[in-house]
Amino acid sequence: MMLGTVSGTVAATIRSGSLSGQALVTVSIATGSGERTVVACNPLSAGLGERVLLARGAAARHALGLPDSAVDAAVVAIVDEKASAPKS
Amino acid sequence: MMLGTVSGTVAATIRSGSLSGQALVTVSIATGSGERTVVACNPLSAGLGERVLLARGAAARHALGLPDSAVDAAVVAIVDEKASAPKS
Amino acid sequence: MMLGTVSGTVAATIRSGSLSGQALVTVSIATGSGERTVVACNPLSAGLGERVLLARGAAARHALGLPDSAVDAAVVAIVDEKASAPKS
Amino acid sequence: MMLGTVSGTVAATIRSGSLSGQALVTVSIATGSGERTVVACNPLSAGLGERVLLARGAAARHALGLPDSAVDAAVVAIVDEKASAPKS
Amino acid sequence: MMLGTVSGTVAATIRSGSLSGQALVTVSIATGSGERTVVACNPLSAGLGERVLLARGAAARHALGLPDSAVDAAVVAIVDEKASAPKS
Repeated sequence: MMLGTVSGTVAATIRSGSLSGQALVTVSIATGSGERTVVACNPLSAGLGERVLLARGAAARHALGLPDSAVDAAVVAIVDEKASAPKS
Repeated sequence: MMLGTVSGTVAATIRSGSLSGQALVTVSIATGSGERTVVACNPLSAGLGERVLLARGAAARHALGLPDSAVDAAVVAIVDEKASAPKS
Repeated sequence: MMLGTVSGTVAATIRSGSLSGQALVTVSIATGSGERTVVACNPLSAGLGERVLLARGAAARHALGLPDSAVDAAVVAIVDEKASAPKS
Repeated sequence: MMLGTVSGTVAATIRSGSLSGQALVTVSIATGSGERTVVACNPLSAGLGERVLLARGAAARHALGLPDSAVDAAVVAIVDEKASAPKS
Repeated sequence: MMLGTVSGTVAATIRSGSLSGQALVTVSIATGSGERTVVACNPLSAGLGERVLLARGAAARHALGLPDSAVDAAVVAIVDEKASAPKS
């Protein structure tokens, strides 16, 4: 999983059927060479500015209980605090 | 999913059987270290210059309803507007 | 999928059983930060210097009809022309 | 798998159901262009500062025996020593 | 698949059960922005300094005949020679 920060929401009326009703957020991830933004489903209703864990691929679909959906990223945890870890 | 912009189309007469009839577009994705171009199936008929969400891997095949196809990228949503998110 | 150019062939006598008989080519992919080379199966017999679409992961195995093979990249289309897309 | 070093722990009370009870650690991975941090499940109870092997995707879920979980990274080995390999 | 060079071995007594008995090597891969090291299973017994093809994800598990193992990288071929391809 990747550590990131919820940085916004995405509105998309026209979407694949399996994305219907899914809240979509942008998650900013610090990388060695700058910052990367991923759009993820947000089943835990993480709020703007919250530190979260992002899962990719099949893990994201498992988080939603939608193994056959067109989803490849989801927020799978909200970080309480981060002990003795580098800020990233 | 990744935020990108439809930047062109791809013509390819010779293609894997499971790609038959699929419209292919180039999607430009801003990254920390420049821009990356991905070729994706376009089941939502997103137009040139439209902001879209791109899904990779099995998610792309699920978007097309073709789980056994030779596809690893698809446009899965067209973005209406992007609220309080970094431009990327 | 990624846009690339067939840049060579790879000879490998000792290989996993499921790669037996597969033609292997190097495909050069332009990235924001230089060029990357991927070795791919070439079921469409794309020639040296041809522009191709490369699929990764399970998509590559589906292109070959070998879902349980040790393959993670395959040429899935030969590009005719690329309309209004950035050269990449 | 990637070589990394356990650099911290992650506390997350709110998490996907399938992550329940999983110890989460940050693993720092040296890359050509800096350092990357991945959050991984830690079924082997690797300690802070230990060199480990990290697996991604389905391999991580297999390590946990949880093929349908929202996990995409796990520590799958603790390195004893690393013979004649570049430090990375 | 990626072209790489076997650069060392990895000793790890404590490992996931499905990695039991697997020889692990480090494979160095040249990238546009430096060098990357991946740890891979070595079912073909490639030797130190040999040029190899590395497969990632499910392809690696297929190479081992262990679809449910905690493996995400394996050497799947030993390169004889590389014809008209860029050194990478």
